[in-house]
Amino acid sequence: MSKPSIPKGTRDFGPKEMVKRNYIFDAIRSVFQKYGYLPIETPAMEKTETLLGKYGEEGDRLIFKILKRGASLEKDVEKIRNGEKATYAEEALRYDLTVPFARYVVQNQNDISFPFKRYQIQPVWRADRPQKGRYREFYQCDVDVIGSNSLLNEVELIQIVDEVFEKLKISSTTKLNNRKILAGIAEVIGESDRMIDITVALDKFDKIGQEGVVKELNEKGISSETIAKLEPIFDFTGTNESKLEKLEALIGNTEIGQNGIDEIKSILDKLSTFKFQFSTVEIDITLARGLNYYTGAIFEIVCNEFPSSICGGGRYDDLTGVFGLKDVSGVGVSFGADRIYDLMEDQNLFPQNIEKTLDVLFVNFGEKEAEYCLGLLAQLRANEISSELYPDSAKMKKQMKYANEKGARKVVIIGETEMAENILTVKDMETGEQANLTIEQLIHNCVG
Amino acid sequence: MSKPSIPKGTRDFGPKEMVKRNYIFDAIRSVFQKYGYLPIETPAMEKTETLLGKYGEEGDRLIFKILKRGASLEKDVEKIRNGEKATYAEEALRYDLTVPFARYVVQNQNDISFPFKRYQIQPVWRADRPQKGRYREFYQCDVDVIGSNSLLNEVELIQIVDEVFEKLKISSTTKLNNRKILAGIAEVIGESDRMIDITVALDKFDKIGQEGVVKELNEKGISSETIAKLEPIFDFTGTNESKLEKLEALIGNTEIGQNGIDEIKSILDKLSTFKFQFSTVEIDITLARGLNYYTGAIFEIVCNEFPSSICGGGRYDDLTGVFGLKDVSGVGVSFGADRIYDLMEDQNLFPQNIEKTLDVLFVNFGEKEAEYCLGLLAQLRANEISSELYPDSAKMKKQMKYANEKGARKVVIIGETEMAENILTVKDMETGEQANLTIEQLIHNCVG
Repeated sequence: MSKPSIPKGTRDFGPKEMVKRNYIFDAIRSVFQKYGYLPIETPAMEKTETLLGKYGEEGDRLIFKILKRGASLEKDVEKIRNGEKATYAEEALRYDLTVPFARYVVQNQNDISFPFKRYQIQPVWRADRPQKGRYREFYQCDVDVIGSNSLLNEVELIQIVDEVFEKLKISSTTKLNNRKILAGIAEVIGESDRMIDITVALDKFDKIGQEGVVKELNEKGISSETIAKLEPIFDFTGTNESKLEKLEALIGNTEIGQNGIDEIKSILDKLSTFKFQFSTVEIDITLARGLNYYTGAIFEIVCNEFPSSICGGGRYDDLTGVFGLKDVSGVGVSFGADRIYDLMEDQNLFPQNIEKTLDVLFVNFGEKEAEYCLGLLAQLRANEISSELYPDSAKMKKQMKYANEKGARKVVIIGETEMAENILTVKDMETGEQANLTIEQLIHNCVG
Repeated sequence: MSKPSIPKGTRDFGPKEMVKRNYIFDAIRSVFQKYGYLPIETPAMEKTETLLGKYGEEGDRLIFKILKRGASLEKDVEKIRNGEKATYAEEALRYDLTVPFARYVVQNQNDISFPFKRYQIQPVWRADRPQKGRYREFYQCDVDVIGSNSLLNEVELIQIVDEVFEKLKISSTTKLNNRKILAGIAEVIGESDRMIDITVALDKFDKIGQEGVVKELNEKGISSETIAKLEPIFDFTGTNESKLEKLEALIGNTEIGQNGIDEIKSILDKLSTFKFQFSTVEIDITLARGLNYYTGAIFEIVCNEFPSSICGGGRYDDLTGVFGLKDVSGVGVSFGADRIYDLMEDQNLFPQNIEKTLDVLFVNFGEKEAEYCLGLLAQLRANEISSELYPDSAKMKKQMKYANEKGARKVVIIGETEMAENILTVKDMETGEQANLTIEQLIHNCVG
């Protein structure tokens, strides 16, 4: 039999990766909780009808469907012949956390007290073609508040983003835009009904530059004169204040545009109460984010030293409408754990020694010595010190290799002499130094 | 559109359930880590060939298969007509954590330093008929050590079980048996090749009693004279010492039986070094546990006040053989998080106020007051105090209802007067008392 393997686009996470992944998840989770967000979890499978039609045509194709219990091709072929409907896949794996969240809110609307501040950290599955940095199974970390129109929620989410990345020592920039500003721009150039085309093109500004955007808009049938009116947008540098002035001049005469400007102003104004040590908040009107359900603020967070979007989100006024609950506004962001992991590896941002989770390893010299160690182990563990006894009396070299590979901080050696003198020979695996200690001294060293 | 729902046998977990579930998972995880076990995670999907044939015929039927990307009934029907193989489901959802772990070990055998002590806490999926307490998606918490024959591992696992249940305040009994004792019994009654039949029948002793077991053995064609030799087993009370004596008398003359007795003796002997405050370890030779891959120790842990098996496991000498890696012995246990949850709810074992995760809620009286609160909020959060400002200036009654439902410990009210006097009106939601505090005093109260 050939060596077993896993489906393409999926990954195993070994202990060394897990400890780093958990470091990221713990940081994110602790900030969410501090800001009053509560966890929920939804099932890996949703009814297929819940998911289909929510992610566009391409999205529908990427949803993993689950074969019905007892379904078989033969039976279904038979059904089709008889003119019946073959229901071989009524369930599917979740594609993101947003649609299941909307479904959850609608299903439990009578038990939820709004505004509902929830976070959710779970894997999602997409039948994408796997490539570097793109997987078929990956985690999303979503935080949303639903049932409140207040811009204080946008402010809070920007603070959360800032605090998470400060905790992780990632220097980041929060790019801020507003769908209403994009609508104002479309209106002022007389192409309100082309807003989607315009934002989709603008969204690519980072990648294809002004020339590329102009070309794409041309191809979509927008005239060169109209595009010329967009000129001020392409040279959109300077402080947030100067950007807002330019915007006022450009779209201040449209109601929706002014509305968007006011929202951004209000958010920046409230944020100025806080110090932002790590992240910078920056207006970026080329930011559109593919998704069409955003109706207000749009966020994207990029790392300053790594070319990658690591978090993003925005306000959506009608997330739950598709499930029959109208007029519930929400706003949220989603952290990309995999990209955060990659950049932290690249930038060497994980704490030193994060992999050293084992405080003490006892070498096993044989049955009598091992039994003697059990009592000492119990004392260490009673003090919450992670510790273990090598289970077999293998060669010293093998046991030391194990200690090394496991990243033990200290190794305790107990032979005849140590037992007789009631003392422990302790090797510090970092310095290589060896010392004779009592169990109390060892506990003190580990805890201190 | 009708109200959305989730697939049968699956569950949403809301905030109140999540905080309790996480309490259980955190307790289990912290003990695993203290004993030197390291976390791994495997993908939700495995190749179908990895899973099929590992769980028996019934198990195979309960594996959820995933439709291949781009697969469609129409295409597959066409293929079948052409005499081709229709490969519409090459992947499947994991059915347990044991087989993926075995696959992981074999796949990564060159990178793992043995003995490998791993734990894994992830959901599994089974297309079982849902019923009370049985779900199609549920979590398993597995802890195993692989690559060591030492009985010290069995001892350690029993300690882990003891410490987890002590932490959760669950009074439990660890039932201990050994496959070799069962083999010894089969040998001594001259039915070595019927060991499976005998153990399957014995396993039901709890439910169907002596009469039922005798009947089942009779039906399997084991003679009444032979069954009579089993008599001593049915009346198997007393201390572990007296049970071991009875066993010696019954099967001490078989090599395998004596071997099993010696193993149990050695485990109990080493365990006697420790105090067991909560759990009791008890030899139970009717314990067989359906699975046929156990080769040595068998564990089952039951709660003393709730009729439920909450944890179980054993030693298996050839888990990885099916994937081509021979002679690697392992031993492990699996905690049933759902049953533990149910019994903790039933026995009222969760800490009081566990649902109160929000320390402080600020009432929102309007824009000016809200903005004033932002600075205070920042101070609380800088001290790791979970806190939030109600985002809208809704009616007081609505905001207090929200605070109540969210389980806020304290509510802070800041109006004109409080702003002018630089003071906070703080309501303790438990006692109902109201006091005027400075922000420093509030921080002190929350942290202390």
